[in-house]
Amino acid sequence: MEQKGKKKIVTIGGGTGTSMTLSGLKKYPQNLIDITAIVTMMDSGGSTGRLRDEFGYLPVGDVRMALAALSNTKEREILRELFLYRFNKGEGLSGHNFGNLFLVALTDILGSEEEAIEYAGKILNISGKVLPVTVGKADLVAGYENGEITYGETNIDEVSSFSDGKQRIKKLFLEPEVQTTDKVRQAIEETDFVILGPGDLYTSIIPNIIVGGVAESLKNTKGKIIYIVNLMTKWGQTYGFTAKDHIDEIIKYTDRVPDYIFMNNTPLPLEILEIYANDNEIPVEDNLQETGDYNIVRGDFVNSMMVEKSSSDKLKRSLIRHDSDKLAKAIMNLLEE
Amino acid sequence: MEQKGKKKIVTIGGGTGTSMTLSGLKKYPQNLIDITAIVTMMDSGGSTGRLRDEFGYLPVGDVRMALAALSNTKEREILRELFLYRFNKGEGLSGHNFGNLFLVALTDILGSEEEAIEYAGKILNISGKVLPVTVGKADLVAGYENGEITYGETNIDEVSSFSDGKQRIKKLFLEPEVQTTDKVRQAIEETDFVILGPGDLYTSIIPNIIVGGVAESLKNTKGKIIYIVNLMTKWGQTYGFTAKDHIDEIIKYTDRVPDYIFMNNTPLPLEILEIYANDNEIPVEDNLQETGDYNIVRGDFVNSMMVEKSSSDKLKRSLIRHDSDKLAKAIMNLLEE
Repeated sequence: MEQKGKKKIVTIGGGTGTSMTLSGLKKYPQNLIDITAIVTMMDSGGSTGRLRDEFGYLPVGDVRMALAALSNTKEREILRELFLYRFNKGEGLSGHNFGNLFLVALTDILGSEEEAIEYAGKILNISGKVLPVTVGKADLVAGYENGEITYGETNIDEVSSFSDGKQRIKKLFLEPEVQTTDKVRQAIEETDFVILGPGDLYTSIIPNIIVGGVAESLKNTKGKIIYIVNLMTKWGQTYGFTAKDHIDEIIKYTDRVPDYIFMNNTPLPLEILEIYANDNEIPVEDNLQETGDYNIVRGDFVNSMMVEKSSSDKLKRSLIRHDSDKLAKAIMNLLEE
Repeated sequence: MEQKGKKKIVTIGGGTGTSMTLSGLKKYPQNLIDITAIVTMMDSGGSTGRLRDEFGYLPVGDVRMALAALSNTKEREILRELFLYRFNKGEGLSGHNFGNLFLVALTDILGSEEEAIEYAGKILNISGKVLPVTVGKADLVAGYENGEITYGETNIDEVSSFSDGKQRIKKLFLEPEVQTTDKVRQAIEETDFVILGPGDLYTSIIPNIIVGGVAESLKNTKGKIIYIVNLMTKWGQTYGFTAKDHIDEIIKYTDRVPDYIFMNNTPLPLEILEIYANDNEIPVEDNLQETGDYNIVRGDFVNSMMVEKSSSDKLKRSLIRHDSDKLAKAIMNLLEE
């Protein structure tokens, strides 16, 4: 039975950032919150990209991570572990994620990516639901300040594929243009809270917003928008970006000012910052002013454990991560206001 | 609560023949029967063989089929279908069975094939249990009348790999010799019924019996042994074999006369027999005499549907199959005696 106080939360993103938020939120009772994860479908690299090219289905890498983050399985979390498992042997098999193969096989059996995602959600006993932002097949394209154009999510993500990691992305778009689904529109428009980020601005967050209909729904929704500012800048995407730079980009693509900004204010460990500095990556500077445009929620959002490896598709791993429990607690605090 | 009338049934085999028996038996209530499927672990071909070679784990093809046959899943049998799904695209992926990949990934996560099989059984909600006949790694070796030796289950199964499909196999053995497990011994010794066959004599049935300890347990068990005679002879394995030839081989390897022989007495469709005849395969002749050594149960055990394709690893498909429901019914009749 739905309780009167039950709040709807929509997350928009992909990759490990969104997974952090989701795995924190799922620990709260389902009679308090109703989670919908809207995820990007433009991944073009690794196992996901190979399967996309070979099977012609939508890329499922971000779906896989969101499903795993929301899963509630008994028996020592083995099913979740299995879903994130990556084969490290086998000709042609090596590098593939089991969860990707699971979703591809299911899509083939059921004849639809959406049904496959829904069924996988049942098997994994997820809290909430996972919606692909689109069922259209599209490539992500970035146009840089210097006029360069890069095609494909992986290429945008990998610094080596364009000339200068300092270049800013002037325009991010999809080719071809694709539309979102009615389910996504409805989820955004009827939610109480929308959570954008954390995550790579141009390969996890904005790729959702540029899908036809999403920005419109974000403008129309009665829900509050929370934007969680990244901890670190990213060479090739957000070199030298301050917190305000991040928010300005969000506003540019959504055409709406977020209601809340989550900004970490805990210092990050120096030994890790040195590793990032080698890649020209630094902590995102907090230059936010209380202008009244949005509420700034500052706090300790950092995971104190160093993340050494990840089961994501990305070759490059973040060492500093948001803490899923701290993020979820801060979100739940807002819900109770 | 275990009922007094509950009967234990052990099947010994592998491949589609055993699957037929299991999928019939699983329809009976679990308070009436307790099923244990003991399966071969010597498969060396197809997806299973590739994974065995690349990962170094035990070959799981026959386990996969037994698990699928015993599975009870809700929601339109999708999970079972998924488990039997074969990828038909993807470099290096094509030809792999999803169920095999599932078991390999689980083995890697859990560190043991036995645990992986047990866990997969839980996921698939199987009736009964599936036990690998051994956890030792061994190859099947066949020595023929003419002195030829063939190594590997697939090679024995494929007529092209030895000179003459009429040659009889004088000796089937494992290299190296491997032992069975305590669980298998216990299952056989404490059962009420052991079911051998149907299935390829030298690649599905006897490969279990030659594992160290199995023949001994079959001699020691108080349980009755039912041998289900194949419908058709098999070129390269049982060319020209009569029913008595089959039984003689079973006796030779088990050193015990079966208690019951199931023998089909329904004529097979002529148009299908013609297809088999092209491969020098004919219906197994019923030359059994009521000698008092064993009880002969004759009946209609044939599936009236033509089987056109299968999800097994074998390249060659049987077109005539035993009927799972008819077999199970005949077995259940014996149990009630």
